[in-house]
Amino acid sequence: MAAALLLLVVLAAALAVTEASASAFAAASNNATAPPPTVVAGKLNVHLVPHSHDDVGWLKTVDQYYVGSNNTIQGACVMNTLDSVVDALARDPARKFVVVEQAFFQRWWAEKSPTIQAIVHKLVDSGQLEFINGGWCMHDEAAVHYIDMIDQTTLGHRMIKKQFNKTPRAGWQIDPFGHSAVQAYLLGAELGFDSVHFARIDYQDRAKRKADKGLEVIWRGSRTFGSSSQIFTNAFPVHYSPPDGFGFEVLDESIIPVQDDLSLFDYNVEERVNDFVAAAIAQANVTRTNHIMWTMGDDFNYQYAESWFRNMDKLIEHVNKDGRVHALYSTPSIYTDAKHASNESWPVKYDDYFPYADSTNAYWTGYFTSRPTFKRYVRAYSGYYLAARQIEFLVGRSSLGLFTSSLEDAMGIAQHHDAVSGTAKQHTTDDYSKRLALGASKVENGVNTALTCLTNSNRTCVSSVTKFEQCPLLNISYCPSTEKASSSTKSLVVVVYNPLGWERSDFIRIPVNDENLAVKNSVGTIVESQLVEVDNVTGNLRKFYVKAYLGITSDKAPKYWLVFQASVPPMGWNSYYISKPTGAAYNGTGYASAVVSPSNDTIEVGPGPLKMSFSAASGQLKRMFNSISGVDLPIQQSFLWYRSSEGDSMDSQASGAYIFRPDGNTPTTVSSSVPLKVIRGPLVDEVHQQFSSWVYQITRLYKNKEHAEVEYTIGPIPVDDDIGKEVITRMTANMVTNSTFYTDSNGRDFLKRVRNFREDWDLQVTQPVAGNYYPVNLGLYIADGNYELSVLVDRAVGASSIQDGQLEIMLHRRMLKDDARGVGEPLDEVVCVGKDCQGLTARGTYYVNVEKIGHGAHWRRTYGQQVYSPFLLAFTHESEHFLQEETEWKSYSVPKASMMDANYSLPDNVAIVTLQNLDDGTTLLRLAHLFQAAEDPQYSVLTKVDLRKVFGKRTIKELTETNLSANQKKSDMKKLNWKVVGDTENGPAPIKGGPVDSQALVIELGPMEIRTFLLKF
Amino acid sequence: MAAALLLLVVLAAALAVTEASASAFAAASNNATAPPPTVVAGKLNVHLVPHSHDDVGWLKTVDQYYVGSNNTIQGACVMNTLDSVVDALARDPARKFVVVEQAFFQRWWAEKSPTIQAIVHKLVDSGQLEFINGGWCMHDEAAVHYIDMIDQTTLGHRMIKKQFNKTPRAGWQIDPFGHSAVQAYLLGAELGFDSVHFARIDYQDRAKRKADKGLEVIWRGSRTFGSSSQIFTNAFPVHYSPPDGFGFEVLDESIIPVQDDLSLFDYNVEERVNDFVAAAIAQANVTRTNHIMWTMGDDFNYQYAESWFRNMDKLIEHVNKDGRVHALYSTPSIYTDAKHASNESWPVKYDDYFPYADSTNAYWTGYFTSRPTFKRYVRAYSGYYLAARQIEFLVGRSSLGLFTSSLEDAMGIAQHHDAVSGTAKQHTTDDYSKRLALGASKVENGVNTALTCLTNSNRTCVSSVTKFEQCPLLNISYCPSTEKASSSTKSLVVVVYNPLGWERSDFIRIPVNDENLAVKNSVGTIVESQLVEVDNVTGNLRKFYVKAYLGITSDKAPKYWLVFQASVPPMGWNSYYISKPTGAAYNGTGYASAVVSPSNDTIEVGPGPLKMSFSAASGQLKRMFNSISGVDLPIQQSFLWYRSSEGDSMDSQASGAYIFRPDGNTPTTVSSSVPLKVIRGPLVDEVHQQFSSWVYQITRLYKNKEHAEVEYTIGPIPVDDDIGKEVITRMTANMVTNSTFYTDSNGRDFLKRVRNFREDWDLQVTQPVAGNYYPVNLGLYIADGNYELSVLVDRAVGASSIQDGQLEIMLHRRMLKDDARGVGEPLDEVVCVGKDCQGLTARGTYYVNVEKIGHGAHWRRTYGQQVYSPFLLAFTHESEHFLQEETEWKSYSVPKASMMDANYSLPDNVAIVTLQNLDDGTTLLRLAHLFQAAEDPQYSVLTKVDLRKVFGKRTIKELTETNLSANQKKSDMKKLNWKVVGDTENGPAPIKGGPVDSQALVIELGPMEIRTFLLKF
Repeated sequence: MAAALLLLVVLAAALAVTEASASAFAAASNNATAPPPTVVAGKLNVHLVPHSHDDVGWLKTVDQYYVGSNNTIQGACVMNTLDSVVDALARDPARKFVVVEQAFFQRWWAEKSPTIQAIVHKLVDSGQLEFINGGWCMHDEAAVHYIDMIDQTTLGHRMIKKQFNKTPRAGWQIDPFGHSAVQAYLLGAELGFDSVHFARIDYQDRAKRKADKGLEVIWRGSRTFGSSSQIFTNAFPVHYSPPDGFGFEVLDESIIPVQDDLSLFDYNVEERVNDFVAAAIAQANVTRTNHIMWTMGDDFNYQYAESWFRNMDKLIEHVNKDGRVHALYSTPSIYTDAKHASNESWPVKYDDYFPYADSTNAYWTGYFTSRPTFKRYVRAYSGYYLAARQIEFLVGRSSLGLFTSSLEDAMGIAQHHDAVSGTAKQHTTDDYSKRLALGASKVENGVNTALTCLTNSNRTCVSSVTKFEQCPLLNISYCPSTEKASSSTKSLVVVVYNPLGWERSDFIRIPVNDENLAVKNSVGTIVESQLVEVDNVTGNLRKFYVKAYLGITSDKAPKYWLVFQASVPPMGWNSYYISKPTGAAYNGTGYASAVVSPSNDTIEVGPGPLKMSFSAASGQLKRMFNSISGVDLPIQQSFLWYRSSEGDSMDSQASGAYIFRPDGNTPTTVSSSVPLKVIRGPLVDEVHQQFSSWVYQITRLYKNKEHAEVEYTIGPIPVDDDIGKEVITRMTANMVTNSTFYTDSNGRDFLKRVRNFREDWDLQVTQPVAGNYYPVNLGLYIADGNYELSVLVDRAVGASSIQDGQLEIMLHRRMLKDDARGVGEPLDEVVCVGKDCQGLTARGTYYVNVEKIGHGAHWRRTYGQQVYSPFLLAFTHESEHFLQEETEWKSYSVPKASMMDANYSLPDNVAIVTLQNLDDGTTLLRLAHLFQAAEDPQYSVLTKVDLRKVFGKRTIKELTETNLSANQKKSDMKKLNWKVVGDTENGPAPIKGGPVDSQALVIELGPMEIRTFLLKF
Repeated sequence: MAAALLLLVVLAAALAVTEASASAFAAASNNATAPPPTVVAGKLNVHLVPHSHDDVGWLKTVDQYYVGSNNTIQGACVMNTLDSVVDALARDPARKFVVVEQAFFQRWWAEKSPTIQAIVHKLVDSGQLEFINGGWCMHDEAAVHYIDMIDQTTLGHRMIKKQFNKTPRAGWQIDPFGHSAVQAYLLGAELGFDSVHFARIDYQDRAKRKADKGLEVIWRGSRTFGSSSQIFTNAFPVHYSPPDGFGFEVLDESIIPVQDDLSLFDYNVEERVNDFVAAAIAQANVTRTNHIMWTMGDDFNYQYAESWFRNMDKLIEHVNKDGRVHALYSTPSIYTDAKHASNESWPVKYDDYFPYADSTNAYWTGYFTSRPTFKRYVRAYSGYYLAARQIEFLVGRSSLGLFTSSLEDAMGIAQHHDAVSGTAKQHTTDDYSKRLALGASKVENGVNTALTCLTNSNRTCVSSVTKFEQCPLLNISYCPSTEKASSSTKSLVVVVYNPLGWERSDFIRIPVNDENLAVKNSVGTIVESQLVEVDNVTGNLRKFYVKAYLGITSDKAPKYWLVFQASVPPMGWNSYYISKPTGAAYNGTGYASAVVSPSNDTIEVGPGPLKMSFSAASGQLKRMFNSISGVDLPIQQSFLWYRSSEGDSMDSQASGAYIFRPDGNTPTTVSSSVPLKVIRGPLVDEVHQQFSSWVYQITRLYKNKEHAEVEYTIGPIPVDDDIGKEVITRMTANMVTNSTFYTDSNGRDFLKRVRNFREDWDLQVTQPVAGNYYPVNLGLYIADGNYELSVLVDRAVGASSIQDGQLEIMLHRRMLKDDARGVGEPLDEVVCVGKDCQGLTARGTYYVNVEKIGHGAHWRRTYGQQVYSPFLLAFTHESEHFLQEETEWKSYSVPKASMMDANYSLPDNVAIVTLQNLDDGTTLLRLAHLFQAAEDPQYSVLTKVDLRKVFGKRTIKELTETNLSANQKKSDMKKLNWKVVGDTENGPAPIKGGPVDSQALVIELGPMEIRTFLLKF
């Protein structure tokens, strides 16, 4: 051996010490010196993007998909994909692959040896393996709340950052069934993505865009931000699979291997190259620039990656030898850079891509409502998770660790586009629920312990003494803590935590069995309270569901709801004490509720400024009247159902989990004559309406509140007539609304909707109902020259306005046919106790408000925040709390406190949407301005938050502003500039907050602005 | 870095220079330091043997299986298996895998980069990847000739030796449908294998062996050699798949992954370990010693090997942690060594494992005959290939290279247990035929050129002047060379090559159109000849099949067969000249054949010593009489057919490609009254019998021959009655045969068969016909106290003796149902010309001989060799042969020659079964003694071959004796000694030839001995 060679070897060996295995593996590749492929100018470049679309649960559970069990349902094993992709990439440095779902990748990563991890590091560093999207899942875009979208994306992005120091550059929402404005600007541009890519847009829209070469656009999802939050958007011409004949999944029946060995009888290079070129040219004909993307993958593909790469290698070789077009391994980032470099002008797209239809009678608007109780379960834990993280922050790192992380995987998974969307199989949905329940149960324990620490003046943080309990089934009157008989000496203690940045007074309802109870606040003052009898509907639900969900044969239902108003400081807590009154200390006045018998045709209810009138004869709502604002609106409300289509002779399309296809466009009224029961009291009036044996509604008007709270109980939806039913509540107001209504985007921006109209193309109306449904997460409203009628919801729903003056919300659906989009089950939810199975009953609440025109936003925004972030209630009994010491709870406790400086609270237009301790010692803070530009003259303005006051006694030592997912400094974010066709953007530039002074620590926020910070205290 | 470490790195790097990539890859494995697993004494050791059973064509063609196309038929791609196995093995040095079929491996190997090849070398060297069986395919054992078995095994073994310097140690015949004696001793022990392993034995046999722990035996397949050629034999208790629930094929529906992550909801380690232990104990209960083998694989498994290894890794880990049994990665070699080390005594097994039944009515004896014309095609090329290789040797290396290698792949593949067995799908069978045709066509060209060189006295070897032609379709009278009108000046030259080691006189039949032709030998002497009119049956076959197979609309059929006797020296040629006689030079005597009208009831035919009498009334054979030996045997012959079962109410089993299940055990006679036509002449008498429109037979008795040659033409078998038919010829002689008959094993040893009896267990007779069928490749016979009635065949067939004195041979089968063993097609062969499709017609020949008792063997052995190795005929015309020179052919030619010394020829009991130039410059020679011990008093003795005389002018410079497949020196072969239960072997030791003196070069051969040598000249 020559000395020089030896020296080189020594050097190489020395270099190899730190990453010996990884480099060694790469050296074993077939062609270690192949340069990465580049685009060729002047030719049509076909970007082959190898990918596997791995649903985080759908037909199988996440576990089953990961390990590859339950293959009778679907042959899919994500371990195979990741293991084999890494081998395939290591074989040849020219190959590339994009990894999407972190829920799977992170499981896999955690199992891998340091050797394999080193190989993956190398592949990531070289760009062979690129993370795109990078969230925990590929979230849904219709039924998800923006805070959940941010959370699950942040979870994935920060892991990628930590493990690989990489920030994903592309959105990859290839499968969700329509695309939201918030996805584009917030979970796109504000993440720092250059582009977003997806397959599913309306078939009419697609046809037009293909004709106009308008599939690729610059999308300005935010009317507030305009071009400052735009993103390059690539809607695929067909689907996210390759062109026909170019899929190479192992064992696939349709695989046509490239046979380039001349000795093979089926040698087919010319044929395959010709087919390739033809498919490329066909796509080029509907695409601007000479770059087209081929999505080389499909659901759970790359079970054996080499099968794909072997064939793609050959295609690239022979196609490029042929020379008519140029093929290359690529990624969405490379593709986007090539698009950008082309200096082309792109059409502009505003708002969103809802609703999605894939054919005449196939509007994917059913899933906006599908599985309403699961949607609520997810939403409830979304708000809870936010509150629990605040409590975790408040109690400090040292005490309990990051106990809320037990929910992050389950919550991340639940946002998947077949999870919260309601389009997974029942067993998978049960699995999602189980994960949420297990995770939430741990968080609940953590919160209980944390509250023990926080409320204990000694800050004793021993979890064994914790006796706090919470009651997730409070909505069906199940709460063992409060149902216990109270004594006069040992009070039931209710600790009420307020996760909002504002002082807040809300009504609390807890089930009790005593008629004679006093509620005292933390300084011992009696608080006004009211008892309301627990109705039979609730009692029956309680019995069945407590047995079904907890396996507990519950006692008799509690007799009463005890209602009282709690006042809690911002991001703080207050305590209330409930006991049997002793002697004269208690004055019973105003205590019970009265059941009223109507004396004339109209009954007016409402203890406060808002009054509602009902017809005693029909039992129906007639009018809403606000004595303060003077608003007075004739309005009717009823329940109706659409008959689910089972297909007809023209089109076999059935209504199902995804698709809403009513059989006829006129819904059937559940009942036009409704028995009424009215209950009055000092705090709340309730109107109970029994619409039918399976529809019950309670309208509550609280003292001091200017909206109605409407609790519906729907189910079991009868199907013994073999008719699937999709149940709506419909409000019909005397308003002229010009086909226009407004729905929110993921709980954030409100978008204008015009019935039977699309901004982007000349709509052919084929489904006058289903085609006008839109997803709603926060609420919707209509307006005329005088009033705004707004409704807020407690979960994702589908909603519309089918007639002027109307709002309708689909609340529950039960069907007997599958709609042939893959799930393979009819959406026919049942709940069983042993063999006693019933159709699922859904209970929920919506909130109705009427304001003068221009004044609705404040209620929608601020009360919307309260709906999302209700009080967190924890219960204990004085005698149990410090069992060993047997002393009075009060003497040790901190019954009331706030994180913030006394008297400080956030402005009405700001919410803290994240406050979370991270595992690297930093704290993640997100502040959100709650108003759009021009939404409210008073609140759609630049606003300020004084962080020093927000964090009270804590001192911020370091503050770094980041992008939305906190994986890069805000100052490091790079944005590509794009030319657009006929750019007409004018008007004022969006208002945005300025840089943060590290001393003053005052954060400015413009309308709709969300600012993200990493803090060190 | 410490200096010492640096030094080590330098040394390691230096070592790595030659095989950098391979060692680098191994370094990337998860656990590079894991020691190979070993057995644990005192525990039940479960040997996991990872394997993939890759049929070299079956439902798909070899190409399709290799590249993974046509997956609608079967999801299978061998590239996936080999690619992914190498990755999986490289990941962890504990893992092992056995590679079997070289037809696939060698394709793959040739495509791999040096880097991958280096990795594979390392895996082979370390024992992680072990070649077993190692032939080109896993050959059939019923329908293959031993020379083909040797050839295809040698092809694979020598490649493995050359590429990896490895010699396979284990036979792995897991799928063939029964197992032959020749497989055990010849293609087992004589290869140097320690063991053979397979799945398929009779279900009754298996039941008994399980009960007796007798699945594993010491098999002495040769009665001649006894324990000196024995082999350890492992018959699996169920099949070659793993125990239920332990298959881990990617995407398999039944996969139950081992889930050992406690966070998985379906964590199942205990359950999986318990199931593993239970399955192991169940198998241990039917197995001797504490070693059991689990065959971890199935057909075309390991499409993604990691799926298997990942789960097996976990099983091994957790089972061994559990400790009740010990699991390890193993191979048949490791397993056999463990068995051997156990010092156990094993039962002895003799003879073979035929026939195979998997249930009561499922005797796999149909495939002995299935696809009779394909079986003949393979057999014809087997003999041809042997002859062509001799010619290749004779012409020498320098001239034409190894032109016969173009047939080695096709011939190797054709021996596969779904190829020549007749159990592949039709399209696959067509593919086999195509490969044979393409390969043979090249060999034919080579032979033509070689004959030009050899017969040209100048040894001019320019292929462009070659005008020799051969006529593969001679059997249907298609031979353009001979059909041409002959002239009186330019003779048709027939060069006749004799591949046997003996001078030989055989009759040649060529189609001609002239009535007036003279045949002269090479010295110009006229040779007696005879013209026989070409019959209409042949003419019709010719027309249809020449169009079907060659696409040629052939001329009118030739008028005559010209018959003459050619005498050719051993391994040499002679030339005959056919021309129109000129003037007085030719005497027309004895020229034409006469058609005889029978004058009384019995017609006796035969120009020589053998006479046969037929009834003029019934047209049937009555008697055979030999005037020399005095043998005189009443004998009848007829055609009959079994009705193929389509299943019945008790058992849905149908007769099909694999299984022979007659519907009733009495066959239907085709015709008992047969029109006769008798043709007489000086050389041959012919009896033409028209049994029916679809059965035609010609019996030929030649001058000087003591056997009858019987040519049958069967087909199209009518199925318009919807009845499948399995057609036999049956001879009924007046002999008392005591249920006993004899059939050969792969054309080599004759085995005694006793009707309705098995040596190894008490047979429950469920199929009195099908269960008595045995495979025949050379012939069969019966004997009584006086005579031996022998039949030799020209291809593999199934045959039996269902009544004493009877022999029956199944010649053709056509069925309308599939027999549910996987092929998925009824065996209903049709041949089409355009849209005119007919059932396949099979034409073939069998040879009948009667001798006095004790004298049959000589005819069977010597004439059998002639049947296998017929004359090779090549044709040219004088005027064409040296076109440019326009001179007389004779003046330049060497019309007659022998490889051997003049007057030397091999003894009657020896054949050269291989003479082949190898690509490494050596020549492979195999000499076979043709007689079993005690078969013939004169010939079953030690015999000698003088190699110096055999090779005439060539000088042998070096001679090395090797094992049968020539991949190791004979002296290097190691044999394990085995203890057997009650070993009663006594009698004389087998006679075997002694060492070869390198000067004398005389080879001794004992009965049945085959000796293999590598020669250098």
